Amino acid sequence: MSLIERVEDAFREALHGTGQAPLRSPLVVGVSGGPDSAALLHSLRQIVPADLLVVAHLDHGLRPGSAAEAEFVAGLAGDLSFQSARVEIAERARARGLSIEEAGREARYEFLAHVAREVGATAVVVGHNADDQVETILMHLLRGSGPAGLRGMRPVSPLPGHAGLWLLRPLLGLGRAEIEAYCAQHELSPITDASNADLTFFRNQIRHELLPLLEQYNPQIRQRLVDMAAAIAAEDDLLMHLAGRVWEDAVLIDRGTVVALDKGAWRESPLALRRRVLRLALSQVEPTPGDVGFRALESARRIAESGNTDARAALPGGLTLVVDYDRLIIRSGAAEQPADAPQVPTLAPILLAVPGTIELADGWQITAKAEENADARAISANRDPWTAYVAFDAGTPLVVRARHEGERMRPFGLGGQTKIKKIMIDRKIPARLRERWPIVACPEHALWIIGHVLDERARVRPQSAYVVRLHCRQPGVSEAG
Amino acid sequence: MSLIERVEDAFREALHGTGQAPLRSPLVVGVSGGPDSAALLHSLRQIVPADLLVVAHLDHGLRPGSAAEAEFVAGLAGDLSFQSARVEIAERARARGLSIEEAGREARYEFLAHVAREVGATAVVVGHNADDQVETILMHLLRGSGPAGLRGMRPVSPLPGHAGLWLLRPLLGLGRAEIEAYCAQHELSPITDASNADLTFFRNQIRHELLPLLEQYNPQIRQRLVDMAAAIAAEDDLLMHLAGRVWEDAVLIDRGTVVALDKGAWRESPLALRRRVLRLALSQVEPTPGDVGFRALESARRIAESGNTDARAALPGGLTLVVDYDRLIIRSGAAEQPADAPQVPTLAPILLAVPGTIELADGWQITAKAEENADARAISANRDPWTAYVAFDAGTPLVVRARHEGERMRPFGLGGQTKIKKIMIDRKIPARLRERWPIVACPEHALWIIGHVLDERARVRPQSAYVVRLHCRQPGVSEAG
Repeated sequence: MSLIERVEDAFREALHGTGQAPLRSPLVVGVSGGPDSAALLHSLRQIVPADLLVVAHLDHGLRPGSAAEAEFVAGLAGDLSFQSARVEIAERARARGLSIEEAGREARYEFLAHVAREVGATAVVVGHNADDQVETILMHLLRGSGPAGLRGMRPVSPLPGHAGLWLLRPLLGLGRAEIEAYCAQHELSPITDASNADLTFFRNQIRHELLPLLEQYNPQIRQRLVDMAAAIAAEDDLLMHLAGRVWEDAVLIDRGTVVALDKGAWRESPLALRRRVLRLALSQVEPTPGDVGFRALESARRIAESGNTDARAALPGGLTLVVDYDRLIIRSGAAEQPADAPQVPTLAPILLAVPGTIELADGWQITAKAEENADARAISANRDPWTAYVAFDAGTPLVVRARHEGERMRPFGLGGQTKIKKIMIDRKIPARLRERWPIVACPEHALWIIGHVLDERARVRPQSAYVVRLHCRQPGVSEAG
Repeated sequence: MSLIERVEDAFREALHGTGQAPLRSPLVVGVSGGPDSAALLHSLRQIVPADLLVVAHLDHGLRPGSAAEAEFVAGLAGDLSFQSARVEIAERARARGLSIEEAGREARYEFLAHVAREVGATAVVVGHNADDQVETILMHLLRGSGPAGLRGMRPVSPLPGHAGLWLLRPLLGLGRAEIEAYCAQHELSPITDASNADLTFFRNQIRHELLPLLEQYNPQIRQRLVDMAAAIAAEDDLLMHLAGRVWEDAVLIDRGTVVALDKGAWRESPLALRRRVLRLALSQVEPTPGDVGFRALESARRIAESGNTDARAALPGGLTLVVDYDRLIIRSGAAEQPADAPQVPTLAPILLAVPGTIELADGWQITAKAEENADARAISANRDPWTAYVAFDAGTPLVVRARHEGERMRPFGLGGQTKIKKIMIDRKIPARLRERWPIVACPEHALWIIGHVLDERARVRPQSAYVVRLHCRQPGVSEAG
């Protein structure tokens, strides 16, 4: 197969992966002017109609001649649409505390996404080759990223940080030498140092020091690493899929700064998926969790598995794992209020109208509604802990409040009076949540410790004249019915 | 935690993995006399009752002083049981075309297994440490072993090549420096060059050249690689388990030199498992398949997925993959006869007595039995292609034979006569199998093309006086009922 045919195959396969084959919308091609992007553009011209190609060049402002390079790329683009911009990457890196490589990548993706949105493209194409892939894999390996990092760059992936846009890498199977030969054959005269110029010290070391040494041990090392990455990619896909299924089973709350997982469903899954689901939770709470290393994750996992309740683990990036009786709660530092359980927003009682809804702390709500359906009354023993049917004299006002010091109630079905504090301990409500645990009460006594225990006096009987349905709603949990 | 406590924890966990905790049978400890095994023995003395410890030393005959080392180890063993032997490893390596390291490992495992069997032990313990683990992972990486190779050595595994024995490595979490400090602290004075002496050139390069360079890039690289291996180990376990389930679903034949898989069940599984199940099949057919590289496996996989039937792929080590209409057949060079389908063993007809069984080629069998049960007759339209009920005149002899040139039959339910060759083509019997495909026939005409088509004249009717049940049995496939 010729190089063009190989690019075409890889391009079609990647496009297929986006679900957008055949191509109908424009395609943004990131072109630095180096051999990779010059060859990429040259080959894409023979694969994609010219009116769908948009050439985009970002001047990184890192070298004196960089403005001239932009002009060179404009020349390469010829009659194609061409857009360019200049960003002072060194400055940006300093300002954001990023490496030059990270700042450059972020700025390039931002620029490519900007152009894509402007021209109505859904995909951008870049010229990473097999040697870049090998270097990336080694960088991930050296930095100690997990198995998922060893798959390297993907031929098709969402554009990082820019939802709805795809990133295609059709040269990922081609070696640098093949690409340079292609450039020579087609007299593309690319900027030979352009692709090296933005390299960080680290990538340069890998390219010029580590890889030559590894090639002494195994002359086929590049191919071996690419093969390993391909094998790992398929396994990673499967493991992600399986972790996604566990996630679906286990997730109770998933909103911004907090995730709660059903501890039982999580603990039943195999070790590899427990780890991956924990990582998923961290990435939901903190989309760029930085380096939550394996050891930090492992100590969190051990705490979550230990059977201790009300245990906590601090994770890097200000994340916290709280282990409840039946839940794992992961929250970011930004989550000011605990959202894993209902809490009264104030220690003063709040009137609960019927019908009516009041807001508890942190997005929780409680709703009251008169229930006239006799069938529904019959299900006062229903098993959703967040719903209760209570009977009392019509006209009696309801309030939601915290327990009083020493307050007692008559737990339904138990007989006798018990201290609410003791009930809460028996029901395993963590100490830190007891003081503000919401109770629905009439003026005389408590009716319902939300989520837990109904008072005998609120029991629905066939002759009950007035029945109210109380329902407490967890934030972020979509409900059926 | 002290080093002893860490060894104890790791030892108990490994023992637990063998299902044999608490320890009741003797434990064979492989001791070279170097720091690792000296520390291992010293710490095991404090964990395991002395009467359960058996010290085993293999003199590799690689250095002039090796006999003296055996004496040193005998001294370390003190009052414990002690066994030693000498093998000329260099000679063995030459004779078997192995590297010194491979030959040494093979000989050590053989010796340890021998001692274990002699003393009634079910587990042997060796002193591999975390630095050995890092080197092993890098060796696997450099050789291009797949994801499974990156998990490195296991803390507990079956002793390779010696079924029923376990291999424990309780020092796998301890660094070389910690172990040497332990030796110094307890004045063990191990043979300092013993552990280096058997090193191959390759492992030495990794230890003294590659690892120091990697540590310049990331001072934590050893820990990172150990962590990565731990993460991969759990994922590998899960993937093996899932591949095992696909295997159970898909395997049709699994005996020595040939494996047949249901193509449909295999193709339905995810890419990662299709690859792993193919590898499993190869390892069943050839227990030491050498290096079936990723590329060879991929080309076989592509052929198996291509939809071409009767396609073949040659795999390294003389293995062959044959793609049938509904099966993948993997066979070793040692499999002389195709066993994936029934074939007559000779072109001369063979008399089939009722009741009676005759042997076809390569383990296939056909059985005939008079069927007097009226209910069973009713299921003459049963859906097992390998069973047929035929009606004919009692006393007519049955034979099993290949088709005759130009022979015709009257396919049940189709009406009219058709050439048997054409029927075989329509039924997608591969060309290479048609000439010897077995047919059950009476003197006048064919009754049953085994596995495929019944003759109209053999049809069972309510008034049929004599019905014979014919059943063809695939070798190696266990049958219910």
